[in-house]
Amino acid sequence: MTEFGIAHIEAAARRIAGRAVRTPVLASPMLDEAAGCRVFVKAESLQRTGSFKFRGALNRLLTLDAQERRRGVITYSAGNHGHAIAAAAREVGCPAVIVLPDTAPANKVRNCRWWGAETVFYDPATQDREEVARAVAEPRGLMLVPPFDDFDVMGGQGTAGLEFAEQLAERDVRPDAFLVCCSGGGLASGASAAMRARFPELACHVVEPVGLDKMARSLASGVPEAKPREPATVMDGIAGPMAGARPLAVLSRLGATGLTVTDAQALGAMAAAFRFLKLVLEPGGAAALAAALSHGERFSDKTLAVVCTGGNVDETVFARALSHVP
Amino acid sequence: MTEFGIAHIEAAARRIAGRAVRTPVLASPMLDEAAGCRVFVKAESLQRTGSFKFRGALNRLLTLDAQERRRGVITYSAGNHGHAIAAAAREVGCPAVIVLPDTAPANKVRNCRWWGAETVFYDPATQDREEVARAVAEPRGLMLVPPFDDFDVMGGQGTAGLEFAEQLAERDVRPDAFLVCCSGGGLASGASAAMRARFPELACHVVEPVGLDKMARSLASGVPEAKPREPATVMDGIAGPMAGARPLAVLSRLGATGLTVTDAQALGAMAAAFRFLKLVLEPGGAAALAAALSHGERFSDKTLAVVCTGGNVDETVFARALSHVP
Repeated sequence: MTEFGIAHIEAAARRIAGRAVRTPVLASPMLDEAAGCRVFVKAESLQRTGSFKFRGALNRLLTLDAQERRRGVITYSAGNHGHAIAAAAREVGCPAVIVLPDTAPANKVRNCRWWGAETVFYDPATQDREEVARAVAEPRGLMLVPPFDDFDVMGGQGTAGLEFAEQLAERDVRPDAFLVCCSGGGLASGASAAMRARFPELACHVVEPVGLDKMARSLASGVPEAKPREPATVMDGIAGPMAGARPLAVLSRLGATGLTVTDAQALGAMAAAFRFLKLVLEPGGAAALAAALSHGERFSDKTLAVVCTGGNVDETVFARALSHVP
Repeated sequence: MTEFGIAHIEAAARRIAGRAVRTPVLASPMLDEAAGCRVFVKAESLQRTGSFKFRGALNRLLTLDAQERRRGVITYSAGNHGHAIAAAAREVGCPAVIVLPDTAPANKVRNCRWWGAETVFYDPATQDREEVARAVAEPRGLMLVPPFDDFDVMGGQGTAGLEFAEQLAERDVRPDAFLVCCSGGGLASGASAAMRARFPELACHVVEPVGLDKMARSLASGVPEAKPREPATVMDGIAGPMAGARPLAVLSRLGATGLTVTDAQALGAMAAAFRFLKLVLEPGGAAALAAALSHGERFSDKTLAVVCTGGNVDETVFARALSHVP
């Protein structure tokens, strides 16, 4: 297959069936009132490892042949993707190396090691993480698993959209718009493609932090844009360096458009999820919900399908969000 | 039917199908490590109104005949049961009156009114809530919906256990023990009966706050015991005044035994649910998980089925629990 499509996603769904959580779709009339529209939330925070990233990691690892699996895999994400690769590698019985900055928080290092992954550190001030990863990978024949710019990763993430579409159809719900947070675009492209396959009239929106809307800029320019150095954001999970070329091509074809949210809106959405849905969300994982809550005039009386992507948040950030409880 | 049994629960499941959430069963290898045993959690915090109480309320209201429904219902719980009755009454199109102490927190009053229920206040220092409720109910022909001591309420709550058993069987999991928090015993009796019907060897445990173990005392004495005045507990959701006679009879027949947990253990279980499951739990809702985490020696290497019953907690109590994150 030279172009990404629903077939990649359906193949991924068959591969990961029974090994990834079929996460629930939740709703709350009180949340609807707060948003001024009807909101259905796909709770990927309840996925294994606490984010949707497990879907793509597992799908990619399940496509390895026996020799590749024996040699193992490597990645250079300290966050949800690294954690997911570590867990998926354990699941399929494959060695994994996670390349981490020596500034990575202790709990992220612990998460990777907990699953049996090997950790390799680099100095982000003087070393390039991709070069470090290549230097470790080559002599051992490790396969680099990219976090988003890969059809099998996109296909795995897309299963979240495929399930969401099935779960909405089971309830006779036909959404007007699909809101999903976006960084490199693996989930945004895969899940949007799956949702659009089922709902051809659906408007697809990628949600990014204000000022860090690299995918929206990429959709405008037609080429993958890098993240500007400023501003900082509390939404660390969606603050990666680049938009992905393959995700960009898919999102462009779907006519996706961008929405942005502020840190305060993301924290407010975490508080709303705490109050109305009883979900623990991380700031980036709440970005799409934040867009639903803060772009009310645009979605007035519409039905929205919103992905809440992860719940890996430390208690100090969560305590900050609690002060935003409505 | 003069004795409570699986038929009540199966009838309730048919009645509420599609109107209550089929809540997910979650697990985490990191949680298993912390507990020293294998733990499966039924996340009733994700139920409509944030607790299992919606199941029993909806089932009871769906058994009303047309005239009863037109007249309406009344209850005297300020907590999860009152909230659930208000929401279920809206669902079936039936007037509801909630009798509340004039000391009830503003958000609980707001919750009841949000669903369209009428609120009536009494002075807990000088008035008896049941008498107040009767005085309001009689002239209007309102039906009193008891919070637990009723076969249809027990049957509705029991659907959580019926689903749990089905979801475990789908995964080929055969639990050794079932842990469920208990106050009046509506959920504990209904869900234990359903789980035991599917797993005949299952040990059933009711979990209560230390010193407030009225159901364990009732199981020992054979008659419904009242709650002692002391100690206070952070687990307000399971600190009701009495064990129920009908629930007691069921739990006694099943050979259920009691476990107790401290406030610190409940808060620690909320923190574990935050960290490992990404669930918002209230203290009483985390009691059964607290027992799984703190009675390790008893359950070493066993497989436990644990109900996490609710997530209606205010942010100050949740912030306290966050300081217990492992």
